[in-house]
Amino acid sequence: VNRPLYVGVIGGRSCSPDTAALAFEVGRRIAAEGWILVCGGGGGVMAEACRGAAKAGGLTLGILPGMNREDANPHLTCSVVTGLGEMRNSLVVRSSRAVIALAGSCGTLAEIALANCAGIPVVGLSSWRCRPGEDTDHPGLYSFEASSAAEAVDWIKQRLGPES
Amino acid sequence: VNRPLYVGVIGGRSCSPDTAALAFEVGRRIAAEGWILVCGGGGGVMAEACRGAAKAGGLTLGILPGMNREDANPHLTCSVVTGLGEMRNSLVVRSSRAVIALAGSCGTLAEIALANCAGIPVVGLSSWRCRPGEDTDHPGLYSFEASSAAEAVDWIKQRLGPES
Amino acid sequence: VNRPLYVGVIGGRSCSPDTAALAFEVGRRIAAEGWILVCGGGGGVMAEACRGAAKAGGLTLGILPGMNREDANPHLTCSVVTGLGEMRNSLVVRSSRAVIALAGSCGTLAEIALANCAGIPVVGLSSWRCRPGEDTDHPGLYSFEASSAAEAVDWIKQRLGPES
Amino acid sequence: VNRPLYVGVIGGRSCSPDTAALAFEVGRRIAAEGWILVCGGGGGVMAEACRGAAKAGGLTLGILPGMNREDANPHLTCSVVTGLGEMRNSLVVRSSRAVIALAGSCGTLAEIALANCAGIPVVGLSSWRCRPGEDTDHPGLYSFEASSAAEAVDWIKQRLGPES
Repeated sequence: VNRPLYVGVIGGRSCSPDTAALAFEVGRRIAAEGWILVCGGGGGVMAEACRGAAKAGGLTLGILPGMNREDANPHLTCSVVTGLGEMRNSLVVRSSRAVIALAGSCGTLAEIALANCAGIPVVGLSSWRCRPGEDTDHPGLYSFEASSAAEAVDWIKQRLGPES
Repeated sequence: VNRPLYVGVIGGRSCSPDTAALAFEVGRRIAAEGWILVCGGGGGVMAEACRGAAKAGGLTLGILPGMNREDANPHLTCSVVTGLGEMRNSLVVRSSRAVIALAGSCGTLAEIALANCAGIPVVGLSSWRCRPGEDTDHPGLYSFEASSAAEAVDWIKQRLGPES
Repeated sequence: VNRPLYVGVIGGRSCSPDTAALAFEVGRRIAAEGWILVCGGGGGVMAEACRGAAKAGGLTLGILPGMNREDANPHLTCSVVTGLGEMRNSLVVRSSRAVIALAGSCGTLAEIALANCAGIPVVGLSSWRCRPGEDTDHPGLYSFEASSAAEAVDWIKQRLGPES
Repeated sequence: VNRPLYVGVIGGRSCSPDTAALAFEVGRRIAAEGWILVCGGGGGVMAEACRGAAKAGGLTLGILPGMNREDANPHLTCSVVTGLGEMRNSLVVRSSRAVIALAGSCGTLAEIALANCAGIPVVGLSSWRCRPGEDTDHPGLYSFEASSAAEAVDWIKQRLGPES
């Protein structure tokens, strides 16, 4: 069986036009690789990435925080209703072999941190910059910091694809 | 937007040949209606229902109990890795507008009961039969008890479809 | 370290006076053994069992379904706010070495079934009676069916206590 | 009813002697206020804070990531077994009216971020320093940055206590 790679895209429910364009391009390139795009199923970065993936004929999976599908963006192939609120971020991470973080607020930061704990590579694109307290050694939140959608997707391709 | 209906299929990780044939037919008919089949993503009833749906060109969504995709059946369009164990049954229920229960063991019973609590209609097909203690009024676990895959799917169609 | 035994009490958010008296007595006896009582933190069977345990000087732990402590019964030593809805039943089960089921509705049935899946002994007291579909072998939901609070607690004592 | 305040302490499973001493003092002061200390139930900062609270006669609640109590620190009044892994961090946050973050690694950062999303005040003590991407406005992760255990606890006292 040739299983597709699942790649997460995380970022804010709302975003600037520049970030939206970046998200669309990330989604388009994920789909062009034949990967499945995983996200939290909402608006902003999530919706634009899914729109890009859908336009390229790709599959998109949204893991929704609420108890119904009304908040889902309209570009999802499949959606999961969790009712878990921000806890659903952990499921996005667990369902992804790598995640791309675009800008984003506290939910995105939680997701980046959870991916770190889970050993899932995180590619950063204009997202949070953090350093731990002096007491703590931490290798850095990102496996790679990309400066474009192409760089982000290429890094994952070289590290993880193709699976078989 | 014309949103598809999500219908859950719940049942054991292993099953008899008769139950397998029933599950296949349930899956095939769900796909024939244009609905998305939701399940726990494993073997037995889940795998056969997905195989039937996939053969009919439908979409299947598996919500996996473990921390990786190795246990997933090979007929899933999309899978979610939860690491939640049997707690993921709640997500199958929350993601479904109705569920069809086929035979099954304790996990299936938990899912039937959770669907009851959530007000999700359950169609029973040769599954658990329960009555509460004398102290408790309960209207019965099933909204409908079907004697065939066709009856099960038709009942849901008349109650819930089409959505728009 | 002499770790206390955690014993779950599951049952409805509301109950008859007879069931309430039974729950109180179950709670009192759990506390008298020096065990910690775990429950869903709500009213009915949960509240009465906690009241019995608290009156006997025992510790009670409530795992709440909602997002705040307002629905908690007033007899809890500690409460956990989960926001998980009925999914929190799984945490009651996972946190218990054995559970006692008193009467109860769909949430109780889900919890009994989840305990079965997890291999946690369930002692039934006037609760659900179920049999699986003909396709399925299942050894029965209860490790023991008690006819009184004393019998229920004694069975657990002989099976699990004392720990060290 | 005079309900106690639940205050979370988050930080690494292992820590330096200086951070351990700080955690102990934070725990001691939480207990001295009559508050219940909530944590992830593990070692390091969690264990030292609980040891401090227990020494001062306070109650401690540990929400464990694994499927058994073996990893719990020995200073817990009550523990919850979740099997949720790092997802249990969300329950620590939801169960706390305020959290104090001491140093810590990726799990602590996830918890800080989740508390932000949930609107729970976070008091930082030598912990992570983060800034969002340029696209994002974020008011900062901490409601207050303390330089001692006393300052951290006093800030919470002035903001939240006493409840009734």
